[in-house]
Amino acid sequence: MTDAWGAFEARMNEQSDLGGIMGLLGWDEQTMCPPGGRGARAHHGATLAAIAHQRLVDPAYGEAIEAAAALPDLTVAQQAMVREARRSRDKATKLPEAFVRAMAQQRSTTNQAWEHARETKRFADYRPALEQLMRLKVEEADLLKGDGTRYDALLDDFEPGMRLERLQPLLGSLRDRLVPFAQTLLDAPAPDVAVLEQGFDRDRQYAFSLRVLEDLGFDFEHGRQDLSTHPFTGGTAPSDVRLTTRVWEDWLPACLYATVHECGHGLYEQGHARELWRTSVCGAPSLGLHESQSRFYENVIGRSLPFWEHYLPVAREFFPGQLDGVDAMAMQRAVCRVARTPIRVESDEVTYNLHILLRFELEVDLIEERVAVADLPEVWNARMEQYLGYTPKDDVEGVMQDVHWSEGLFGYFPTYTLGNLYSAAIREAMARDLQIDDLVRAGEFAPILTWLRERIHAVGAVPLGEVLMREVTGKPLEVDSFMTYLETKYGALYGV
Amino acid sequence: MTDAWGAFEARMNEQSDLGGIMGLLGWDEQTMCPPGGRGARAHHGATLAAIAHQRLVDPAYGEAIEAAAALPDLTVAQQAMVREARRSRDKATKLPEAFVRAMAQQRSTTNQAWEHARETKRFADYRPALEQLMRLKVEEADLLKGDGTRYDALLDDFEPGMRLERLQPLLGSLRDRLVPFAQTLLDAPAPDVAVLEQGFDRDRQYAFSLRVLEDLGFDFEHGRQDLSTHPFTGGTAPSDVRLTTRVWEDWLPACLYATVHECGHGLYEQGHARELWRTSVCGAPSLGLHESQSRFYENVIGRSLPFWEHYLPVAREFFPGQLDGVDAMAMQRAVCRVARTPIRVESDEVTYNLHILLRFELEVDLIEERVAVADLPEVWNARMEQYLGYTPKDDVEGVMQDVHWSEGLFGYFPTYTLGNLYSAAIREAMARDLQIDDLVRAGEFAPILTWLRERIHAVGAVPLGEVLMREVTGKPLEVDSFMTYLETKYGALYGV
Repeated sequence: MTDAWGAFEARMNEQSDLGGIMGLLGWDEQTMCPPGGRGARAHHGATLAAIAHQRLVDPAYGEAIEAAAALPDLTVAQQAMVREARRSRDKATKLPEAFVRAMAQQRSTTNQAWEHARETKRFADYRPALEQLMRLKVEEADLLKGDGTRYDALLDDFEPGMRLERLQPLLGSLRDRLVPFAQTLLDAPAPDVAVLEQGFDRDRQYAFSLRVLEDLGFDFEHGRQDLSTHPFTGGTAPSDVRLTTRVWEDWLPACLYATVHECGHGLYEQGHARELWRTSVCGAPSLGLHESQSRFYENVIGRSLPFWEHYLPVAREFFPGQLDGVDAMAMQRAVCRVARTPIRVESDEVTYNLHILLRFELEVDLIEERVAVADLPEVWNARMEQYLGYTPKDDVEGVMQDVHWSEGLFGYFPTYTLGNLYSAAIREAMARDLQIDDLVRAGEFAPILTWLRERIHAVGAVPLGEVLMREVTGKPLEVDSFMTYLETKYGALYGV
Repeated sequence: MTDAWGAFEARMNEQSDLGGIMGLLGWDEQTMCPPGGRGARAHHGATLAAIAHQRLVDPAYGEAIEAAAALPDLTVAQQAMVREARRSRDKATKLPEAFVRAMAQQRSTTNQAWEHARETKRFADYRPALEQLMRLKVEEADLLKGDGTRYDALLDDFEPGMRLERLQPLLGSLRDRLVPFAQTLLDAPAPDVAVLEQGFDRDRQYAFSLRVLEDLGFDFEHGRQDLSTHPFTGGTAPSDVRLTTRVWEDWLPACLYATVHECGHGLYEQGHARELWRTSVCGAPSLGLHESQSRFYENVIGRSLPFWEHYLPVAREFFPGQLDGVDAMAMQRAVCRVARTPIRVESDEVTYNLHILLRFELEVDLIEERVAVADLPEVWNARMEQYLGYTPKDDVEGVMQDVHWSEGLFGYFPTYTLGNLYSAAIREAMARDLQIDDLVRAGEFAPILTWLRERIHAVGAVPLGEVLMREVTGKPLEVDSFMTYLETKYGALYGV
């Protein structure tokens, strides 16, 4: 047994290490790399990706996986390692090397066209590149899909096991409940947010974010925080998790909630059990589940009244004199303002999901070739009007606002909303064991982290995402928990 | 032609990219990596090194090198690329994989023993590991040496083309002139260094170092500076060069001269001609030559009177009130104090070379098995007394002060002194074209950099080190230029 397992393990460790190195290249590019070093970095990334791909599709690895799979008495974790290694490898072997190269090239071209078109504000400058990319994505989906749909094939990169036939009715029912609810809030008097726009010292904002990170349990012995234009969670291993945030002087929530959001991701990664390190199951079973942790910390914890009951006095120490005139309730109302924002990343936790649903519906239609790229702006704007009562003033505010599609990421957007659904279900389950509000009000975050650690973080991708969530929450994926959470919270905040 | 060259080039580019990624891993480990992430980093480094080694010794690469070598009409640069690729590969193929692994393991063991022994201050705790390492180094040298000496084989990693039979008389004659000269200075009244020990604000010291870096021509679009315990120059490519420095509050020269020293290395790396990027000759032809650039900037430029004539007023702006009572001459005298320091890295530019000569002589004797590891402390201390008139108070101050031998670096130390010899010869040659003192006094560093760029930095490792230096300086490697430089400078400073 030892030899066959050892041979498999060595290969699996190697793939994990290469992934960790990729993580460093990516983190560094967005935080430390001098601007002129980007060209070299592109070469480094391409070379490493090519090597990792070669090592992944190497027939010897395939044989090692199957030899390990045939071993008797594998533990549940070992079976999962074999399962995930095989899944990655099968997928990689289905895409010819020439196709992978063409896709990488087209992603880069499309990305550049996107950046250029955002400057000229002309969708026509973006369209040909996106059309070409879509042709490749259709080809990729056809290569991968087996007996599923094209969208299933793409979705599988982010939500293994999820199927369009289940996702579509789920998100459809969410849309049907969310559109009228959002409308009610959008028509109600908006909370005053002036307190958040005062001009807050950048260094103090950053120091405050570090304080909150530490309180929430982020481990600086095994991680760090830096600045980047777009906040993200990266790093190289569970023992080296790197968050980034950004500071906007005139909008206090920008830094604070980017930090709290990424902290949720970071706590997840720091929490994988040691026996999973360097294996194929050292990570979340799905992006939606990863996102559930960031959303849980950002919205469920961070945008709650008890959070501000605890942190308002602390914030007053960091920003002397600036928060004297408000109470915790006013702070919560301000950070929970619901608005007709055209930009997804600036939207609130209610309308956010409408931004996602719009994208999800469009990308399904694009990959099934029911909507043409040429018609995207029109369809986008019509649906924005329908869902949010807002028509983008140009395509930069509309269909060209996100980088995802230019990067070839289709099937990614729904994971954001799945994260929201999961976070509300987790909250319900946690509330059966813990007095969440009391703990947050007291600044006692450790029991909350322990609860998540034991049930979710530690097990990594050993279980499939939906299986794990059913175990943790006691019920299948559905929209009730989330809608109830929103209705209760915003009903109280808005008096509707 | 194109195909054979293209196949070779792709492999060569890959090796260069892997080297760049290694550079990032190393830089990050010493600057950014959270402490708990070191374990994962060790795995990442080992995995990448193993892959790079496999790709290097791959017979297909050997064939690609020879096919390229057989092409007609190769340019001089292309011939050099083939030469250097072949040299690296030949060396790698001579060492069996089991040996490479054993050496990596032993280096790690020896390093740990070294760290432990420095705490216990007992050489006996270090000795067994160093003995085992020496046995492996002897084995390595025997595997590599061909018809040269063992020391030649090790030296070749750092000074390709150099031979012990030329190095020994050269450094012997340096020792014979340097020992009495140093003695004279050490016996003379020492300059007052109190002005440098005042307690200088850390942030201002760092800001001053950035100012100097910018003046000297370091390109921040393609590089950066950070802090680390031990200053070094790293990075991933000529377009991404990363310096580090350190700040000692009570010793102004620590930060300033670490920065200026690393700046010399960094300017070299930023200066490689674009057509050499991602090739096997994108680097210095020897470590000694690399060191010549750091020593030139640190000592020839940085510890000159004109340097302080220019920078004293600037320094007064950074450290208001602290430097009012001194003039440029006093500053130069203070930063040029010659002292009986037992520690190499804290020594001055005169006695520094005696520290090196001692190590060089001992490591030659060690590798030829004329001196036993057990006798090292005694031999070390006797020679310290002989060269510097100082007997280390313990082995931490003596034979255990440097990490190099624990890392398996034998043949490395002499490159430091070669750098000094080269830097003085470069100064003589440059003085035929430029009024160096006038330029430095005026803070006009661009012509100096241009001079070095065109002759040394741009050509990378296309020529061999000694060939290049003969071309630049018009004479072979010798000790006169350096001794004349020292005698003139310190004669004036010390009035001897």
